[in-house]
Amino acid sequence: MIKAFFLFSLLLISQVACKGIRQKLDTDIEGFQAWQQNIEIRAYPNAFSREPQARLIELEGLAGEVLSAQVVVKSPSGITGLSGKLSALSGPGGEVIPAEASSVRYGAWLPVDETRMLTPDPLLEVASIDVPANMAKPVWLTIKIPREAAPGNYAGKLELSATSGERANFEMKLEVLPARLPEPRDWKFYINIWQDPSGVAGVHEVEHWSDKHWMLLEKYAGNFVAHGMDVITTSIVYDPWGSQSGYPFETMVEWKYPGEYAKGRAERFEWDFSVFDRYVALMMDAGMTEKIDCFSLVEGPWININADIRYLDTQSGTYRTLNLTLGDSVWQEVWAAFLPVFRNHLEKKGWFEKAFLAFDEKPRKEMRVIYDFLIATAPDFKISIAGGYPGDERKWSDEVILHYGELDTEEGLAAHKWLIEKMRSEGRYISFYTACTPHYPNVFLFSQLRESRLLPWLALKWNLSGYLRWAVSAFPADVWNQPNYKWHSGDMYFVYPGEDGPLDGMRWELFRQGVQDCEALRIARQMCEKAGRNDLLVRLSQAVTQATTL
Amino acid sequence: MIKAFFLFSLLLISQVACKGIRQKLDTDIEGFQAWQQNIEIRAYPNAFSREPQARLIELEGLAGEVLSAQVVVKSPSGITGLSGKLSALSGPGGEVIPAEASSVRYGAWLPVDETRMLTPDPLLEVASIDVPANMAKPVWLTIKIPREAAPGNYAGKLELSATSGERANFEMKLEVLPARLPEPRDWKFYINIWQDPSGVAGVHEVEHWSDKHWMLLEKYAGNFVAHGMDVITTSIVYDPWGSQSGYPFETMVEWKYPGEYAKGRAERFEWDFSVFDRYVALMMDAGMTEKIDCFSLVEGPWININADIRYLDTQSGTYRTLNLTLGDSVWQEVWAAFLPVFRNHLEKKGWFEKAFLAFDEKPRKEMRVIYDFLIATAPDFKISIAGGYPGDERKWSDEVILHYGELDTEEGLAAHKWLIEKMRSEGRYISFYTACTPHYPNVFLFSQLRESRLLPWLALKWNLSGYLRWAVSAFPADVWNQPNYKWHSGDMYFVYPGEDGPLDGMRWELFRQGVQDCEALRIARQMCEKAGRNDLLVRLSQAVTQATTL
Repeated sequence: MIKAFFLFSLLLISQVACKGIRQKLDTDIEGFQAWQQNIEIRAYPNAFSREPQARLIELEGLAGEVLSAQVVVKSPSGITGLSGKLSALSGPGGEVIPAEASSVRYGAWLPVDETRMLTPDPLLEVASIDVPANMAKPVWLTIKIPREAAPGNYAGKLELSATSGERANFEMKLEVLPARLPEPRDWKFYINIWQDPSGVAGVHEVEHWSDKHWMLLEKYAGNFVAHGMDVITTSIVYDPWGSQSGYPFETMVEWKYPGEYAKGRAERFEWDFSVFDRYVALMMDAGMTEKIDCFSLVEGPWININADIRYLDTQSGTYRTLNLTLGDSVWQEVWAAFLPVFRNHLEKKGWFEKAFLAFDEKPRKEMRVIYDFLIATAPDFKISIAGGYPGDERKWSDEVILHYGELDTEEGLAAHKWLIEKMRSEGRYISFYTACTPHYPNVFLFSQLRESRLLPWLALKWNLSGYLRWAVSAFPADVWNQPNYKWHSGDMYFVYPGEDGPLDGMRWELFRQGVQDCEALRIARQMCEKAGRNDLLVRLSQAVTQATTL
Repeated sequence: MIKAFFLFSLLLISQVACKGIRQKLDTDIEGFQAWQQNIEIRAYPNAFSREPQARLIELEGLAGEVLSAQVVVKSPSGITGLSGKLSALSGPGGEVIPAEASSVRYGAWLPVDETRMLTPDPLLEVASIDVPANMAKPVWLTIKIPREAAPGNYAGKLELSATSGERANFEMKLEVLPARLPEPRDWKFYINIWQDPSGVAGVHEVEHWSDKHWMLLEKYAGNFVAHGMDVITTSIVYDPWGSQSGYPFETMVEWKYPGEYAKGRAERFEWDFSVFDRYVALMMDAGMTEKIDCFSLVEGPWININADIRYLDTQSGTYRTLNLTLGDSVWQEVWAAFLPVFRNHLEKKGWFEKAFLAFDEKPRKEMRVIYDFLIATAPDFKISIAGGYPGDERKWSDEVILHYGELDTEEGLAAHKWLIEKMRSEGRYISFYTACTPHYPNVFLFSQLRESRLLPWLALKWNLSGYLRWAVSAFPADVWNQPNYKWHSGDMYFVYPGEDGPLDGMRWELFRQGVQDCEALRIARQMCEKAGRNDLLVRLSQAVTQATTL
């Protein structure tokens, strides 16, 4: 809902003598610059403005919406101790949006190998920053419009000041529209982004399931819920993705066996659900209450049929690994033993209806093995499958996640129309995902910021429940200095490890903006329907088509 | 043929205190840095290196090939008077590639609105440059391997030095492969990129068809031929594209009429071909001898059916405009009068076989009008049509240019297979083009440099004659300060206006590299065939497939 300001006009100032070519470059500008820049365009250190003296920020949003704006600063001599302060916003009839509803954060640079560019994404929560000479630095403004804010026009200001003496005041105008966004936990837009508690433990250098770890996980959970995430990601075995992020994903269910596993004696397994229970409860307390994904009866993703299970030998007190492949006889007896116990446990907690056995990109052939097994042994477990195999008449999955590449052509969309309609009409989840592909649109550190906002709109366009991604908090060993691990830079995370919790990334704020756009559109549609304004409904649909034409 | 160096390792140096996050940024490095960077990755002012101390440049190429390499320099305090000097290269058995075969140029920055980034592309031919503090600057190296160079390993060095005291020496290794590239004018790869003499006149502020203009056009022609361009772009009417670049495209044929045109009296037209003749001769002398495109019987592009003709009223000495639409009765009589005279003139010059009546993106409906007319009045003129309508049994066009979007899916390629095979087997031209679309791959200033190299490879993959683009030298009024005019930044030009001729852009050098890659591949295939090595032919095809998988 943020108005796009593409500011065109003169470039300023002095002249470079280069063989007669008169080039005026804004790098030659003397003195401090500060300008407003559309949040969809990343402000790299080599950013420039054609209106570095424009000092107006205009926003509009629904009551309850979280809005972002961006101001960029640059100076040929560098800036020391720069900080920004957003005032309260005065509105109609003495209404006030207090300064506490706003925050000012500062973009940090990551060295991104694909482009060889220092790239701003993490939003630092610090009192002030220094800005090296000639390097443009983004100052990120966030306003959480109170849900009870009255509609109308508000005004305030942003004051930038630096201990090195620079000053700039921006006028801030905000129009609160006459509609209210629900709390993020109540957004209808479905967001399934897989969390990684082991990523958090690793990057913060804390022991798994220690007090410090749980404290951090609570902070991350708060961030995730504030961005609309709906699904709790749990692990029911050790390392269900074969360390694809560079480290094992710890299990939340401890498998215990007295001695070494003996074929045919699966009933001697015991399971400790205490971590699982605490994790689910923590996420639910934070507001993520819709669904629990349980990974997984087989290692993900794709044709990999490894299904090893690590268990604690309670006699020796050491870990052992049961080497299994999907569908083999021991795999069958072990899971046949586990699932009823797990079901029982979930029932007792009141979670069974929310729990899904979840699978990552397993193709048809592998999924057939799983369906056959589950139909025979645990038919009432719900199933979530990324990658498109929806099951069959014997058992349909309760969630299908299609890849972007299955939907982005007319042919692909037409081929999946029946499935989308079936899933939607039966109240099941059907969403789409992007991962290593496509190249565009996506949410990598070298993607345009606009793309993170665009993805939710595509779900709307394709009549899907929402969007899925494989990672939000899986971190390379030293994300600040090497944001790339094996996958494209930024593929594994939307947030960054701060001192004692997550820091947002710009991509993450743009994604939230996109989801809020979808919620606002849903509300606008309701209002049109109520008012019998089919003409406006048509225009809303046209707007979605136009915005999502790539 | 340039080896890709993706240099991974440590980022250097000191620490930024930001709420406990230990981030080492190379912006904090003290002192001068200089590193080699893959030419496919643009070195923006915010470029960084993980190996700023690596000092080796390795190249390989065929005798006769023009190779590029890139070195990037940066300093926290700025650099004054930086220059680079490439030595002679010593080869096997006392062979020497002289220093004169090499050149050192420096990237200039353009302010690109779409990304709001200062973006290097133009290559300045200056003795030295200054580099502002903290801003990375590309130094561009070009080596034209002599066609008679002996195969083997050559070695030399690049010396960087600055009046502000910075020094860096790079070791340069070049392997000359045992094959020889033809002169660019003899490359088989077909390049049809439309020139714009009016763009040159405008940006250099010289009068049309003045001595200065012709002198400049000669310089531009030399540049175009050195980059493999094959086709002379001519205008047979005034402003055949309706000033789509921001100014009228002058006619090379002066239409003259005594008084105001009287319907039914087209025989009173006279045509002055002197500019046309001089332009064609100039381009042919430069080495562009393959083909002459003549624009156009209708204004381009697309469904526009305006067909106005400006003519000189020889009685009043002023210009008048005949307002015509495609296919109307006056349009018919006027062109029916012109074409035989034009044909005659071309015959006399020996150019008729090379001349094509050319049309820009006219759809089927409009092209049918043109075909009907030409079949009736001037059936033996060749026809070139961008946008895909190939004609029919009565008359097939001699050149079809398909849009990228018609070929980039399996379905699209399959649908055009018959046409590609027909045109190729009959020795007619069939190529592809990119224009405002696609977003990727393309040659905009915000495109990756790699994409400019990739486009020729796609022609190879799709079995086409080559590549077409609508502009190489159409310039916005002030390209150095506002590289954007209406179309995407960079869409209108590959070169830049220097003091007294064109300056290359990096995109232009990457495009040439891509064409040379295709020529090298053609030669390699011939060598494999001659040696009966089908196994290697298969591997060459695999390499193309792999390189062009987007």
